Amino acid sequence: MRAIEFWFEFGSPYSYPAAARAGAVCAAAGVELRWRPFLLGPLLRAQGYTDSPFNFYQLKGRYMWRDLERSCALLGLPWQRPSVFPRNGLLAARVACRFQDTPWLPAFATAVFRANFVDDHDIADPAVIGACLREAGQDPQTLIDVAQHPDAKRQLRDQTERARSLGMFGAPNFRVGDELFWGNDRLEQALQWLEHAAP
Amino acid sequence: MRAIEFWFEFGSPYSYPAAARAGAVCAAAGVELRWRPFLLGPLLRAQGYTDSPFNFYQLKGRYMWRDLERSCALLGLPWQRPSVFPRNGLLAARVACRFQDTPWLPAFATAVFRANFVDDHDIADPAVIGACLREAGQDPQTLIDVAQHPDAKRQLRDQTERARSLGMFGAPNFRVGDELFWGNDRLEQALQWLEHAAP
Repeated sequence: MRAIEFWFEFGSPYSYPAAARAGAVCAAAGVELRWRPFLLGPLLRAQGYTDSPFNFYQLKGRYMWRDLERSCALLGLPWQRPSVFPRNGLLAARVACRFQDTPWLPAFATAVFRANFVDDHDIADPAVIGACLREAGQDPQTLIDVAQHPDAKRQLRDQTERARSLGMFGAPNFRVGDELFWGNDRLEQALQWLEHAAP
Repeated sequence: MRAIEFWFEFGSPYSYPAAARAGAVCAAAGVELRWRPFLLGPLLRAQGYTDSPFNFYQLKGRYMWRDLERSCALLGLPWQRPSVFPRNGLLAARVACRFQDTPWLPAFATAVFRANFVDDHDIADPAVIGACLREAGQDPQTLIDVAQHPDAKRQLRDQTERARSLGMFGAPNFRVGDELFWGNDRLEQALQWLEHAAP
């Protein structure tokens, strides 16, 4: 089955609508979606940023918040601008990376995005992540323990380093073969590439 | 007739595919396209940039060049990465701004974009702009003289200031009522907004 990798960060606003719609869009196209969480912070710091570009470039930030509100309305998705931005998605990303190829990962990731961008909850709080795991039908304490193990920490560091080595500088990204498509609004083009232009 | 404003800059890579396709896409939707040239340089300097963000953020720049190549291929548009970037579009923008609502403006603007992003010509050269005017059926010397008049210079300065006051920070932008849609890839969303969500 043909596949697209979906590289996302739990603190990234545009990763939220992407996560909400990519599964259904890919399923309709007969394409497997592979969820690949990573940490955007280290990649931004490597570019010289000490804060989110959306905080650093205020005009761009103002546009982004309005754009998200509008894009979610057009997609029929609930949306609330978080009171803290960016939120720390480290714990959520460790859980998601360690279990990225499990069948319950999409339900967990979707719950985390909703906690951040709809319910305005602190996704760095283990109780919030625990609730998201329960929503995905999993036992919170067992999985959070596994995700805090040095092996799981290293797995996320390696995956973040791989994101960097693949040329990523933002989130989300869709990856088709060796091609990167940056942004929620590029999912359709990634599918088009897979269909018509991939070798 | 419902209308969309198309705010563009002749040195901006993503303005090229937008200019190449926006006319036909809007005509098919029964929407008037209003061409609004401006200078991006002053808006970037106001954000603290001393060069194009695509030169300053190298990873983003590398992605952008590949993305343009790919996007133009998918659209069936010719494309060549310019040997100089960004090129100085001041003269072209003065001509375009002074004559922005004429029926020949789209032909002129399209010729300028092709000179920059297909033929790798210096669009700051009056001979190049003259050839673009001839392509649009106009007399080069008369129009270039008019565009160099203080009134025409002030018209472009005012339009650039208006771009800034509308919250623009990049190019191209589509404007529907008071809403900005940034990027070539947002034309369809701007039309969707005009159709379903505009008051």
